[in-house]
Amino acid sequence: MPVECWKWNWSYSQTTVRSILVYLSLSLRKVEALGRYALPRRLVGTQQMPTEHTISTYLIHQLHAHGVGHVFGVPGDYVLGFFNELDRSPLHVINTCDEQGAGFAADAYARVRGLGCVCITYGVGGLKVINTTAQAFAEKSPVIVISGAPGNQERINNPLLHHKVRNFDTQLKVFEQVTVATAVLDDAGTAFAEIDRVLTSVLRFKRPGYIELPRNMIAATGSLRHAPGEIWEPSDPSTLAEALREATDMINAARKPAIIAGVELHRFGLQDALLQLIEQSNIPVTTTLLSKSVISEDHLRFMGVYEGALGHKDVREYIESSDCLISLGTFMTDVNLGLFTACIDQGRLIYATSEKTFIRHHTYEGVHLWDFLQGLLRSRLQPRQSAAIPRPIEASVFHSQRGRRLTVQRLFQCLNAFVDENTAVIADTGDALFAAADMTMRRAAEFIAPAYYTSLGFAVPASIGVQLANPALRPLVVVGDGAFQMTGMELATVIRFELNPIVVVLNNRGYGTVRSMQDGSFNDLQPWRYSRIPEILGEGRGFDIESEEQLEEALSAAREHTQSFSILEVHLDPHDSSPALQRLAGLSAARVRTKDTVRQR
Amino acid sequence: MPVECWKWNWSYSQTTVRSILVYLSLSLRKVEALGRYALPRRLVGTQQMPTEHTISTYLIHQLHAHGVGHVFGVPGDYVLGFFNELDRSPLHVINTCDEQGAGFAADAYARVRGLGCVCITYGVGGLKVINTTAQAFAEKSPVIVISGAPGNQERINNPLLHHKVRNFDTQLKVFEQVTVATAVLDDAGTAFAEIDRVLTSVLRFKRPGYIELPRNMIAATGSLRHAPGEIWEPSDPSTLAEALREATDMINAARKPAIIAGVELHRFGLQDALLQLIEQSNIPVTTTLLSKSVISEDHLRFMGVYEGALGHKDVREYIESSDCLISLGTFMTDVNLGLFTACIDQGRLIYATSEKTFIRHHTYEGVHLWDFLQGLLRSRLQPRQSAAIPRPIEASVFHSQRGRRLTVQRLFQCLNAFVDENTAVIADTGDALFAAADMTMRRAAEFIAPAYYTSLGFAVPASIGVQLANPALRPLVVVGDGAFQMTGMELATVIRFELNPIVVVLNNRGYGTVRSMQDGSFNDLQPWRYSRIPEILGEGRGFDIESEEQLEEALSAAREHTQSFSILEVHLDPHDSSPALQRLAGLSAARVRTKDTVRQR
Repeated sequence: MPVECWKWNWSYSQTTVRSILVYLSLSLRKVEALGRYALPRRLVGTQQMPTEHTISTYLIHQLHAHGVGHVFGVPGDYVLGFFNELDRSPLHVINTCDEQGAGFAADAYARVRGLGCVCITYGVGGLKVINTTAQAFAEKSPVIVISGAPGNQERINNPLLHHKVRNFDTQLKVFEQVTVATAVLDDAGTAFAEIDRVLTSVLRFKRPGYIELPRNMIAATGSLRHAPGEIWEPSDPSTLAEALREATDMINAARKPAIIAGVELHRFGLQDALLQLIEQSNIPVTTTLLSKSVISEDHLRFMGVYEGALGHKDVREYIESSDCLISLGTFMTDVNLGLFTACIDQGRLIYATSEKTFIRHHTYEGVHLWDFLQGLLRSRLQPRQSAAIPRPIEASVFHSQRGRRLTVQRLFQCLNAFVDENTAVIADTGDALFAAADMTMRRAAEFIAPAYYTSLGFAVPASIGVQLANPALRPLVVVGDGAFQMTGMELATVIRFELNPIVVVLNNRGYGTVRSMQDGSFNDLQPWRYSRIPEILGEGRGFDIESEEQLEEALSAAREHTQSFSILEVHLDPHDSSPALQRLAGLSAARVRTKDTVRQR
Repeated sequence: MPVECWKWNWSYSQTTVRSILVYLSLSLRKVEALGRYALPRRLVGTQQMPTEHTISTYLIHQLHAHGVGHVFGVPGDYVLGFFNELDRSPLHVINTCDEQGAGFAADAYARVRGLGCVCITYGVGGLKVINTTAQAFAEKSPVIVISGAPGNQERINNPLLHHKVRNFDTQLKVFEQVTVATAVLDDAGTAFAEIDRVLTSVLRFKRPGYIELPRNMIAATGSLRHAPGEIWEPSDPSTLAEALREATDMINAARKPAIIAGVELHRFGLQDALLQLIEQSNIPVTTTLLSKSVISEDHLRFMGVYEGALGHKDVREYIESSDCLISLGTFMTDVNLGLFTACIDQGRLIYATSEKTFIRHHTYEGVHLWDFLQGLLRSRLQPRQSAAIPRPIEASVFHSQRGRRLTVQRLFQCLNAFVDENTAVIADTGDALFAAADMTMRRAAEFIAPAYYTSLGFAVPASIGVQLANPALRPLVVVGDGAFQMTGMELATVIRFELNPIVVVLNNRGYGTVRSMQDGSFNDLQPWRYSRIPEILGEGRGFDIESEEQLEEALSAAREHTQSFSILEVHLDPHDSSPALQRLAGLSAARVRTKDTVRQR
């Protein structure tokens, strides 16, 4: 059932073919099969693998068998031996400028590919990826963190080895707070089973896991005598049947049902099942900011993103007046709920996720999203009439007006017209995110953003992860100047690995979103000349943009320039903002107003 | 006794006067008294302050009263109200490009000024400074971390607020691992006492502390009815007397005693006491890599840095053949001990720190460094003859050879001749650190480096902290290209706050130190044109350097260019390294060979 395939689009447009050629040239050093793969229900077992394995080769084998082709990281002495093993394996090592960049890249890679990996040294490496790992935890991105560490013998008498903070388990204790599973591979007898335990949890919960590898264990031979674990526990059959009966009755009796399609449908590969449900029942569907693009936005039953008063009024009215909301894999977070301006009546709600399921005010323990969704499909809901629903704004052709200075609104209208089915839109936190929410994502396009945890600096390194995970996608990064100053120089890594994102920097000389809440000189930044960064890095094309026609010309040139990145510096008024942010700014007084707060346990 | 003054040098050379003018122009917005200040034995009490205080104003008042003039950070919504309070206070807000930069700057500031502060938002801010806080913990730098957080009311029912990871106390639990004290100021009745408790621990242990400020508490009025705590507990008098008797007898009976002056002498302001001890007794003194510059390196009784086989042979021989080593405030870390090539016989060791004191193989519980050192001074050790000791290499005038390509060794010889008494040498991790260890630090010069925790990316942001902490110092930053790619763009912050470090980038196209251990393509970096960064940032001067005479000319021009930073990109052979790193590379087989491992409990 949950063995659905990840979205893996191989329609070969011209750009795509070029991207793939770049990718293949990168891959020449290592032959790797490209193609569809499915997320398994069980971990890969021992029968498929060579009998003689060290801890390193087993770890690498399991990562590779579950879809990992690239490992992001920065080398350091405690992890050097493992980097050397990676270099001799089918996995590509992608070393970034800073560990933070590696962490964000691995997160984005995991979102596209189904599993990601970041590999760093002890202390000074591991503790630099706490924030990126926390984001992966919060937004359900399955990332394996591998940290080198001092060897078992080196720890005796607790000496002050470099990179050590307090005790040898300080880093482990920190990671326990931001992962679903941790393991220290200090025993060859249990190491393989420990690797599989962490991997199982990561694949089950779609949240990060931590593996610490003491450097003396890198080449230790482990034991294969363990049974690979089940990834998915089945739902309890009787509870599931009762839940499905109640849900089916409630949906069939409703006059105006609607589906809220959440991000877990993407994480668990259930997007085809969602489409099937819509085809069968004709029930209209909305998404949230975090799950934007989980369904193609030109689907006729898609009504736009629901985000309370932050979003479009007609979607809000439709959803809030629905007498039966079917929420599938949705996080009820404050940003998703339009900073609590959403009014979702729990008395009309059917709510299923991978971790909990409830209908109205009662909970069905042990019923999981995948079984629930498959059950709904089997129960054959009554097909509905195709009544009129709200529709997202069509991304029409953009007509620039000569000499007209760019506004945030017009910028995103132009970008929306530019997006094609092979574009991955990657939005950083801030107005880049709010404005991008109004873009219409076509068929196979991806929309990737830290829409719940909202960490600044995600987008540029994420573009590295996205394009390596699926070379058919060309990333369009939208990023504020504040976020760009944090991680934007990872464009150096973009060059090194021959990628070609188009990066649009919204230069309003500071933290625009924060400015709208509380202004002060602390929101100002030293302006960089972003468009000239290619001169420093030795490759890439830069564009300095003030007017609409300059933007159109630059986008057109960037589309043609496939051999490396393009950076479009767009000068904006410091007090201009997107319609979405303007709605948000007017809302600060209206917080925490839901009729009946949706339970979060 | 421990109420010693921090090194605070006001000798007004020409450069100094210029630096101070820059500083004063920066300070015009806020009038702040400059001058000497002493670290108090007690926290500042309630009698000196206005009676009406909110939690914010009390926190700001206490920081300011204990020497903090600048707060480093990045704004975000949960901390905006507090940033606004900071903006209206005598403290300067220094907003950096990324939180990592703020964390490193605050650490360096604390090392120079005696207390530092980093202020960030919840989750996405706090979890970005875990590594920098861990470094401050490991190397004893007193940094207060202030994090904004969701308000008390917002936490009810555990909703999914943005920036939240798992639970509302996830961040707190993480910080508990890397600080000596934590407090969540969610109760106005206890908030002032909690602030003082954290501050007391930070000043007592010279390690970081964490204060979480829920946003609804920013303007809450607190209660002053608590007694400010004692910072220093006194040593137990009888134990102290016995320890001093034994130590004095042992020292007076020794033929060849030597002092190992550790970094705690700097952290606790005991440098004058050390000088007095040397004047009285004439005993020669060495330092470690972490405590380099704790005594002026042109002092006649200083013999050079002791770092086992990593350092100079004559110092090693002198120390290891001494029959009585007096180790004062020293961390026995692996890097300090020349990666365990040191041979210190514990049977000849007197060891006192702020946390433990032992003589040979027995411990004196409850005896602290400051009391022990003052006791030694009172006991009037027998003065010694001035026998010959090893001496560090004189920093002689550097004569460039026309057309000669630079090597690491010649680069540092030239830099050493350039350093004057107002230079703060800030070395990043890698060969920059090992090579800089051979420089001779004159009188009031500071040497600042992460010599134990060895996190990459410290030096450029540290220069911001150092120069704001003491505008009489001009930072000379030595940093490898790998470290520079992590945080070097904080030069934007340097411009914004009108500072003028001289930054020397050792460009050997990758991780040189790692290369010497295990080579692989993962040690290579996309080369930047570092010398052209001023073009991107709009200020500063860049120099592209290959030969010795180019270096001399650039340094001379950089000294004159005081209105902003200078960046000197020095092209080095990828396989060239300092004499110290060459010694290190030859040592990997020789690890863990100490005769009698020095206890670490």
